[in-house]
Amino acid sequence: MIQPFDDTYFMKKALQEAQMAFDKGEVPVGAVVVLKDQIIARAHNLTETLNDVTAHAEMQAFTAAADFLGGKYLKECTLYVTLEPCQMCAGASYWTQIGKIVYGAPEPQRGFVNLNTKLHPKTKVVSGVLGDECSKLLKKFFIEKRNLN
Amino acid sequence: MIQPFDDTYFMKKALQEAQMAFDKGEVPVGAVVVLKDQIIARAHNLTETLNDVTAHAEMQAFTAAADFLGGKYLKECTLYVTLEPCQMCAGASYWTQIGKIVYGAPEPQRGFVNLNTKLHPKTKVVSGVLGDECSKLLKKFFIEKRNLN
Repeated sequence: MIQPFDDTYFMKKALQEAQMAFDKGEVPVGAVVVLKDQIIARAHNLTETLNDVTAHAEMQAFTAAADFLGGKYLKECTLYVTLEPCQMCAGASYWTQIGKIVYGAPEPQRGFVNLNTKLHPKTKVVSGVLGDECSKLLKKFFIEKRNLN
Repeated sequence: MIQPFDDTYFMKKALQEAQMAFDKGEVPVGAVVVLKDQIIARAHNLTETLNDVTAHAEMQAFTAAADFLGGKYLKECTLYVTLEPCQMCAGASYWTQIGKIVYGAPEPQRGFVNLNTKLHPKTKVVSGVLGDECSKLLKKFFIEKRNLN
């Protein structure tokens, strides 16, 4: 059976968001929040534009999803994000009680996995979905940035 | 020499913010960000009012302080907060590179200390300033809430 709405499908949507960040000169990270195969929030990193280190894609996506639902908790939702969440974003996910986190590229230094950030016990994690594409966009950003400086 | 602007002075200001949260039916946590003895941001927990689990006092205070300074980093600043920060807020503090965090009441279950959230290497931590007063307000809130239900 064909499943058009799989993890790859939604990660592509998160990658589109990451590309929007890239085009603005932001570290290219994008995220979508999905509920029952529907995207209820889209966001990309805006730390430079908003001059705010808390404006990671995931933080904005959580806020937007809760706003859409009219409830603080995202128990039935899945977060798709192109880069492994940091401590702040993983810590925020704990409070949302989100059902699932799917991320693309790993972040061994500042990601929640190696830093052992505690997720909500009901949150499942899937990693590496379109990981190469997600990494490639990030690498392209940092190479271009280095060449400009 | 009398030092009117010590940690106790600024924690009292954070407690005033916590009282404002209490008066709104929010878990009473307050925060201020201080730069050279000047309060540059004040905030209190607004998770219920904004229907947003990311609306902790510290997150709002970081955003407001960066907005005030016109720069993302808070290297010369001190955060005063009535409750030990959670993983999300401590994770956010990492990105702000804040110089110092002073907190009141401990939070053994969900606080950053026992959960080993990584702070920025330059961030100093002071705990227990007006700890009893900060705890008392939180306890009062939860007792009143229990009696209402």
